[in-house]
Amino acid sequence: MDARTVCALLNRIREQKPLIHNITNIVVANFSANGLLALGASPFMASSENEAAEAAKMADALVLNMGTVDEAILKAMVKAGRSAIAHGTPVIFDPVGAGATPYRKFVAESLLEELKMTMIRGNAAEISQLIGEQGEVKGVDAGDLKGNPAEWAKRAAKQWQTVVIATGKDDVISDGSKTFLVHNGHPILTQVTGTGCLLSAVAGAFAAVEKDPVKAAVSAVTFYGVAAEIAAEKSGKQGPGSFQMEFINQLALVSEAEILRHGSFEQIE
Amino acid sequence: MDARTVCALLNRIREQKPLIHNITNIVVANFSANGLLALGASPFMASSENEAAEAAKMADALVLNMGTVDEAILKAMVKAGRSAIAHGTPVIFDPVGAGATPYRKFVAESLLEELKMTMIRGNAAEISQLIGEQGEVKGVDAGDLKGNPAEWAKRAAKQWQTVVIATGKDDVISDGSKTFLVHNGHPILTQVTGTGCLLSAVAGAFAAVEKDPVKAAVSAVTFYGVAAEIAAEKSGKQGPGSFQMEFINQLALVSEAEILRHGSFEQIE
Amino acid sequence: MDARTVCALLNRIREQKPLIHNITNIVVANFSANGLLALGASPFMASSENEAAEAAKMADALVLNMGTVDEAILKAMVKAGRSAIAHGTPVIFDPVGAGATPYRKFVAESLLEELKMTMIRGNAAEISQLIGEQGEVKGVDAGDLKGNPAEWAKRAAKQWQTVVIATGKDDVISDGSKTFLVHNGHPILTQVTGTGCLLSAVAGAFAAVEKDPVKAAVSAVTFYGVAAEIAAEKSGKQGPGSFQMEFINQLALVSEAEILRHGSFEQIE
Repeated sequence: MDARTVCALLNRIREQKPLIHNITNIVVANFSANGLLALGASPFMASSENEAAEAAKMADALVLNMGTVDEAILKAMVKAGRSAIAHGTPVIFDPVGAGATPYRKFVAESLLEELKMTMIRGNAAEISQLIGEQGEVKGVDAGDLKGNPAEWAKRAAKQWQTVVIATGKDDVISDGSKTFLVHNGHPILTQVTGTGCLLSAVAGAFAAVEKDPVKAAVSAVTFYGVAAEIAAEKSGKQGPGSFQMEFINQLALVSEAEILRHGSFEQIE
Repeated sequence: MDARTVCALLNRIREQKPLIHNITNIVVANFSANGLLALGASPFMASSENEAAEAAKMADALVLNMGTVDEAILKAMVKAGRSAIAHGTPVIFDPVGAGATPYRKFVAESLLEELKMTMIRGNAAEISQLIGEQGEVKGVDAGDLKGNPAEWAKRAAKQWQTVVIATGKDDVISDGSKTFLVHNGHPILTQVTGTGCLLSAVAGAFAAVEKDPVKAAVSAVTFYGVAAEIAAEKSGKQGPGSFQMEFINQLALVSEAEILRHGSFEQIE
Repeated sequence: MDARTVCALLNRIREQKPLIHNITNIVVANFSANGLLALGASPFMASSENEAAEAAKMADALVLNMGTVDEAILKAMVKAGRSAIAHGTPVIFDPVGAGATPYRKFVAESLLEELKMTMIRGNAAEISQLIGEQGEVKGVDAGDLKGNPAEWAKRAAKQWQTVVIATGKDDVISDGSKTFLVHNGHPILTQVTGTGCLLSAVAGAFAAVEKDPVKAAVSAVTFYGVAAEIAAEKSGKQGPGSFQMEFINQLALVSEAEILRHGSFEQIE
């Protein structure tokens, strides 16, 4: 695959406007919905157990984000996940803060044992926790990393039979045998809450229009990183408030030409 | 009524700063509160069953939004609604995603049977669902419409003895006998999450200062549409992030002169 | 203390990136997290009872905000608060809308009786309610004030053995014997939802790096007020949407020189 694949999938999203069912947290619900709308997808944020299965059934992808999970949300996630899988709908899992508390460890493991995920998207520390490694998780942010994110992503992908996106300085995508690095993105993303969560939702939109989850994941991450770079350049040194606004703009505006010019990824294995 | 009515009600809101009690969803709570503050109203977002009745009692209007409803929120809505009605306080209902899932259908019908609403505000597809028609609801967005939104609004208003605002390309307001079209607004509103929900809250603020719900509804929709047009013109092609920020600005800044110049509605029946 | 203390503490936050555990409401969760990130702190928004104690244990400060409290959140707050106190972690309490409803009165008193707070941050009306006075609370906004906020702050600090921040035209900080006024800030803060809530979170970040809660509180309020003044000047008459964005920018950008030039507080007792 090359950057033209990214463009092709982006165009499919903008034409098909896939419905993305999100069970997510109170911090990022608004930002995720606005990011998906900007991208051209149609967000559906429904987290009640009473409608989780039906919502997932009608959706083109399901995104499960455990940022402010509790028992009611966990139940809804399981119902939605089972329904999605039964209908062949891709499921993206964002293990926010996995390993930060015993409860989050329990939730992440429960969901992974219960549901075969199409993709897992977390920062490198979160991904390491899913395979029993100890990348430091400080709250929901990655702490110091001693270890090899690409190795963690590969092992997590193998263990959970899924495609893993491990974000960090470079972003790693692995299905356990093939592994890609994406070089796009910008450090200011870490100054805006929910940029990881929104990437998981965006990955859902790409998975909704492309059956090969590695292609979908590499495309989502590349697109997202290019949008961030352009937004960072446009907002300059104005600060994270301006960047956030400009980033939503760029999710709507990024062109094929920009993706072809700036998109940068490679297969390392 | 003409555009001077809109100005008069807007001035009343800015002077009286009515307290608007919102039971709403995790996606739009922040945007709705900021929109109400910009307009000059005072938002009170209280969704616990333990205080729903008291909060509604002290409020000048109550807005019930079922965007991320669950059992606890439904109970709180019923308590708040009964309290508001007992105290003569207007109640605005936003049936977000009505018909998208069986549970949302159940919630919408339960609330409509339990509470006599002052206004219902939904997109045309949602309104159609309230009268057993099948305007397509795709998640929380309107899908393709085959049917007549003005007819749906009129029938829904009759059936539920209320004033209906059905938003779409043109916005329809009907009390079942009188019907208005508002021509203001801008397509970019559909690229920002919660713009429908915020309109419902804004309609609550207008209902708080004007007893005639048709006047209040037409004024709210016209004001909102004019603010959107100006914001769209100011933010130009910068994207939905910039539009969202500018829209909040304009909710605070729109002047009488602008409403008189741009406000555009007509009574069609 | 003088403005150099403010700078010193701000630098400590930017270097140490303290982890701030927030149990907060659906309206301001996103804004609070983004504000803390802009300041240089690391937000952790975890409100489930299942992880409240562990999250508070690992945090450098705990912020309890009762903006949309219900029974589950109240339980989580008590667990988190006990854990924080047991580990010597400062606890900041924001009694949003205290006195607006009987339930909020109950919640505020329960928490104050259960947990020895390091700081309480509320508007003057909310603070008055904590000592049985009747500063008017209109929803979550302060209504008309007849009374003396500095006196209320002092009495509340004595009664609850804590440091009180009472915000208003001038902001008051009192530990019951020493009392400070901070003259910074800007009226447009009242047009953006959650600016009080975010100040409570920011006070948590200052308390995380400074053991003397009066120093921490005066510094937090001064820093915050200077950032607001600069943001208001930069965004000019563009409106509250632009101000909100610029305010997040300034929380990240405010320099030592600006604090030394604009910071304005005095000890009045």
